[in-house]
Amino acid sequence: MKVRRSNRLVDMTRYLMEHPRTLVSLKFFSERFGSAKSSISEDLSIVKHTFHTWGEGRLETIPGASGGAVLTPLYSKENAQKAIDNLVAEVNDDSRLLPGGYVYLSDLIGRPDILRQVGRLIATQYVDQDVDVIMTVETKGIPIAQSVAMYMNKPFVIVRNSSHITEGPTVSVNYVSGSVQRIKKMELSRRTLSAGANVVVVDDFMKGGGTLNGMHSLIKEFDAHLVGMTVLAEGNATNGKRLVDNCTSLIKVDAEDGETKSITARPGNFMTTVFD
Amino acid sequence: MKVRRSNRLVDMTRYLMEHPRTLVSLKFFSERFGSAKSSISEDLSIVKHTFHTWGEGRLETIPGASGGAVLTPLYSKENAQKAIDNLVAEVNDDSRLLPGGYVYLSDLIGRPDILRQVGRLIATQYVDQDVDVIMTVETKGIPIAQSVAMYMNKPFVIVRNSSHITEGPTVSVNYVSGSVQRIKKMELSRRTLSAGANVVVVDDFMKGGGTLNGMHSLIKEFDAHLVGMTVLAEGNATNGKRLVDNCTSLIKVDAEDGETKSITARPGNFMTTVFD
Repeated sequence: MKVRRSNRLVDMTRYLMEHPRTLVSLKFFSERFGSAKSSISEDLSIVKHTFHTWGEGRLETIPGASGGAVLTPLYSKENAQKAIDNLVAEVNDDSRLLPGGYVYLSDLIGRPDILRQVGRLIATQYVDQDVDVIMTVETKGIPIAQSVAMYMNKPFVIVRNSSHITEGPTVSVNYVSGSVQRIKKMELSRRTLSAGANVVVVDDFMKGGGTLNGMHSLIKEFDAHLVGMTVLAEGNATNGKRLVDNCTSLIKVDAEDGETKSITARPGNFMTTVFD
Repeated sequence: MKVRRSNRLVDMTRYLMEHPRTLVSLKFFSERFGSAKSSISEDLSIVKHTFHTWGEGRLETIPGASGGAVLTPLYSKENAQKAIDNLVAEVNDDSRLLPGGYVYLSDLIGRPDILRQVGRLIATQYVDQDVDVIMTVETKGIPIAQSVAMYMNKPFVIVRNSSHITEGPTVSVNYVSGSVQRIKKMELSRRTLSAGANVVVVDDFMKGGGTLNGMHSLIKEFDAHLVGMTVLAEGNATNGKRLVDNCTSLIKVDAEDGETKSITARPGNFMTTVFD
């Protein structure tokens, strides 16, 4: 079956988007479409040019017999700024204020459109670094980790707060929860993380940074390597004390739960960290 | 700026895939590409034909001034069978056996390729039904729910096992955990689910069905409506007693933890439920 260029372009775009950051060989497309490799190469230049023009990703073409193409979804600076502004607007809503200065984010963390933006932003941050795995802690960090994983085409692992029979053997660490100054325990299935792995840590919300600190200890316990930490939202640390100082945040939220009750969201340090 | 057809097809495919099951107007594409609506209509026929040919989705075009196109990602029967066979092969591995007849699935639940297949399969099952929200219970059901939500473009909600300050007011139910015959409690943030909502329930693993039963009670408590329940894997109920009888499973797993220790995975009732 010989497939026309217009149909090839549609199917090729679909296939590359469902296999991001994966080398797809010219041979694969050539056999799939019954077309010469030279035609496939021309198709790929069109795909590359289009993603570049709209600031939606980078297509690298590897020449030669074992060559092919790798699609890396990412945001241009302009598109990233739009996504951050959109997140700020969504969170800037006084009805999100919860007692104790916490912020209600559960609805956003369950919305596909928001998760695509968050995942793509964080994937853009680490686009030129070696990353083997995304780590988060249950529960609300999971959707963030999964979105990043989908765009980076890397697995994600979930640190648990207590033992579960379905995890098999685990490694655990104790950590100080920053917001309540209590010693807690977190653990990770031994099978999920290899020694030497390069790990990106993500979470939904950071106050004191104790949980992120705990994940860093766990990474050391596995002899793995921390590449970076990024959270969706950064709040005010209780007593202004923060246990982590190199964390990137997409947005910052000031939650006033005193006499006046208000939420003020603004961009975090993402744009300066990633694009400056 | 006037954009050529070949570039339009690539960007249009990308845009529709990132906005699945969303009506995108002819006007939007026409302005984006500086092209006549008649040209955009022709582009959309090419996209439609391509997705149909490869069994990867359905593009519906709505004619008229307020018309546009909706891309529904789904699997043809043939592609669904391949995805199920792939899941069976991944799970069919004696080293997944855990004490007590449990099955280690955490690695699969963190793999983007597996999650795409699982999400797309379950989205295919409910493609012609009204669904407002996907529900799951923490922790390992979350990646399944998120994948389904991404393909269906609907939000997902996470039922929690205990109260969390960041959820705001909640509604809770007690339920009998089938595997251990213990009364447990689950709860859901009041803000996340509306009365009358049509809910699809998903989870990673079902033994007795107690957790699924609990979610059904919670749905009733919110005056919402259960559309269906689907799990990635169905195990053997302890004592052969099951509390739920209308659940779809992608695969079935027999875990022998007696004198012989083995895992046997085979297809669940998904294919007959969805395609017969």
